[in-house]
Amino acid sequence: MAVKPTLSKGTRDYAPLEVVKRKYLFQLIEDVFQKYGFQPLETPAVENLSTLTGKYGNEGDKLLFHIRSNRSLKETNPQIAEALKDIPTGFIPESSDRGLRYDLTVPMARFVAMNWEKLPMPFKRYQIQPVWRGDRPQRGRYQEFYQCDVDIVGSNSLFNELELIHIYEEVFTRLGFQNFTIRFNNRKVLNDLAKAWGFESAFSSVLISMDKIDKIGVAGFASELQEMKDLSSATALDLVNLLSADPSEQWMMLEEVLGSTEGWKEVVYLVEKIGNTHAQFDISLARGLDYYTGTVFEVVTHEVQMGSLGGGGRYDNLTEVFGLKNMSGVGISFGAERMLDCMEELDLFPTHLAPSKTKVLFAAFDEATFEQCSSLLFELRNLQVPSELYPEFGKLKKAMKYADAKQIPWVAIMGDSELNEQKISVKNMVSGEQKTISWNELLKIS
Amino acid sequence: MAVKPTLSKGTRDYAPLEVVKRKYLFQLIEDVFQKYGFQPLETPAVENLSTLTGKYGNEGDKLLFHIRSNRSLKETNPQIAEALKDIPTGFIPESSDRGLRYDLTVPMARFVAMNWEKLPMPFKRYQIQPVWRGDRPQRGRYQEFYQCDVDIVGSNSLFNELELIHIYEEVFTRLGFQNFTIRFNNRKVLNDLAKAWGFESAFSSVLISMDKIDKIGVAGFASELQEMKDLSSATALDLVNLLSADPSEQWMMLEEVLGSTEGWKEVVYLVEKIGNTHAQFDISLARGLDYYTGTVFEVVTHEVQMGSLGGGGRYDNLTEVFGLKNMSGVGISFGAERMLDCMEELDLFPTHLAPSKTKVLFAAFDEATFEQCSSLLFELRNLQVPSELYPEFGKLKKAMKYADAKQIPWVAIMGDSELNEQKISVKNMVSGEQKTISWNELLKIS
Repeated sequence: MAVKPTLSKGTRDYAPLEVVKRKYLFQLIEDVFQKYGFQPLETPAVENLSTLTGKYGNEGDKLLFHIRSNRSLKETNPQIAEALKDIPTGFIPESSDRGLRYDLTVPMARFVAMNWEKLPMPFKRYQIQPVWRGDRPQRGRYQEFYQCDVDIVGSNSLFNELELIHIYEEVFTRLGFQNFTIRFNNRKVLNDLAKAWGFESAFSSVLISMDKIDKIGVAGFASELQEMKDLSSATALDLVNLLSADPSEQWMMLEEVLGSTEGWKEVVYLVEKIGNTHAQFDISLARGLDYYTGTVFEVVTHEVQMGSLGGGGRYDNLTEVFGLKNMSGVGISFGAERMLDCMEELDLFPTHLAPSKTKVLFAAFDEATFEQCSSLLFELRNLQVPSELYPEFGKLKKAMKYADAKQIPWVAIMGDSELNEQKISVKNMVSGEQKTISWNELLKIS
Repeated sequence: MAVKPTLSKGTRDYAPLEVVKRKYLFQLIEDVFQKYGFQPLETPAVENLSTLTGKYGNEGDKLLFHIRSNRSLKETNPQIAEALKDIPTGFIPESSDRGLRYDLTVPMARFVAMNWEKLPMPFKRYQIQPVWRGDRPQRGRYQEFYQCDVDIVGSNSLFNELELIHIYEEVFTRLGFQNFTIRFNNRKVLNDLAKAWGFESAFSSVLISMDKIDKIGVAGFASELQEMKDLSSATALDLVNLLSADPSEQWMMLEEVLGSTEGWKEVVYLVEKIGNTHAQFDISLARGLDYYTGTVFEVVTHEVQMGSLGGGGRYDNLTEVFGLKNMSGVGISFGAERMLDCMEELDLFPTHLAPSKTKVLFAAFDEATFEQCSSLLFELRNLQVPSELYPEFGKLKKAMKYADAKQIPWVAIMGDSELNEQKISVKNMVSGEQKTISWNELLKIS
């Protein structure tokens, strides 16, 4: 009869302390977003497939979670209906016209396309919600996980890029990260470089190679370039020279080639404005072959072996697919799951985080002391002190174990003698200190 | 090419002010839960169908959202595979072995069954997460909506019931509800009454009728009883007499019949302990034909025409279906969506809730003043004042409109003359007051 309780593939429960740690991260990120004037948005987990499909490439489409609608498969496709006509309906799954959110950008674009006339423009929104992808689960990769996105929609100003750099800076600094880099580049610069040096036909391959230069090194990059048929060996040499140059040489080489282009001017603006942050221009950054059209960002930590902790960029035609043109957007995302893993490894969570907020646990010996304990409990709660009464009396050992498990700092125990003297024994679960105090003193314990 | 942007049936976007209002409610509820020693739990949206099916009755099973797995339908059922052999795979939906969370109780039971050895016992958890049901959408009923549950698992003590009544009391009072009732009853009392008066065979029908006595009145109840074939007219008369009696008469009638039963003792305990709360014993409360086995609860407001704002009860065999026996649980739920509707109608949201936290919006006339405004912006933010700079200069009218839409209280405007005098003009968007102040004074504006 009994069902073996299991978790669905690629999903996790968050036990109390995990929830507390996750909330600490999300709250800090949210505080920074709000300080910079961003507004919260929440969209439904369930979206029409017409909203989701075709936005994430072929691979993405395959990873979408589809949801069965109430329309029977028989009703939707005559060819299938004919083939299935002898199969009882109960055995036939229903066709799907809905799916689960795959990221937070497409739902935001849909929301903006539906509501832009009512929104303050530029629309600065943040969104912290789970997304679902049918990826093969592995260490650090889940089918259900959170994204934290922040975007500015409807403004071309480069000042927005600067704001996003400051947000990355403030969040990672406040969390206690020390050795990290906010890398940025510009897709226009990469396009212009391809035009100037004539590697437009090999553009995608060059970008993909360049993007992993961290891992394969300049030597690996060089050997990958050699194998590209569309790339002349002269250009390959130029690229290797550029990528192996030190930053100031690199800067001069690029300025010479691209000096008057719009993309280069954007880079120069940001380099001048970033001041004393961890931001750094990096010509090798491409951020895949995404929809980005201007600045691209990526955050990496050098303290832990971990991929990027966040990324983003500018996309000129965010809402065009939903029929709303000329809406430029720029945004960044925080890789919450990886950040949490790093924070665990670097011990960055505040020590005060505990699986419960309870400050005092009362434990009673019998019915009469239970009654008195509950009176004191209600008084303490009136003073807004989170507190509990162990719900069974005469179970002192169990109550102690319970306080331990919930990291409750004080256990207040009442037996007959304490009751008669209007006192109570308190034990500090951290220091082990034990003393008998008056009921009035107890009320000042918090 | 462009897709018409639409929301999926029965779902909603939450625009910034709606998110802020929802968070206000959830945060207040969470604060109370924590004050009473409850710990947060989060479970995944996606559960195996084996966890979900058969727990919510036939009707519930039909309303489950199924998710397609990666196994092709062809692979799972040979009869269907044969029938479909000529249909291209891309046209065939895949079979489902997973679904979306339908409530928060079953996932919690699954979690407890999997983890009880590691949990503090009793396990006091709260959970505020969305659930999905394929109900026909209508006013106030959605396919994706939030539940707020709080449960104590692994303790038979009636003190837990008392705690839950206090939680209802504190939440509704803090929210500003005034005229509300926390109704409670006990399923054992109803069972014992059925035994004593001999209406066991008509038990379900009587309960269903009694549960809607609010709507149909005692007369409606009486006429429904008359039509029940399993019910003698003498018993029907007893029931009508009981339900039409005033509370003190009713109490005496019940005490006479049930005086020494366990269920009645439980009711007496709660009635003695509830003190000066809005809680009230109500023999007509049944809470449907759910899995409850002891106390049942329901909250109603008398200020707005709205069904119950919450309910719950004790269930003796919460985790048995997952193979873990003798785990009694008691819990209540807050009907967040209805509560939000009531709060809107009763105007219970604090006036300080705004769609953004921004206190100051800077607006600049040209590039030089923009530069200076950004310096002041960064200083203000260093003082932790949420603030923004309108990202384009020379767009004063647009900036004003923007501040209005985001309910930003101060707009700080800098032109050439202000720049030269190290001053800035500030306008209070609430009072309309306008003045020119020094940059130093501006930094004290918050």
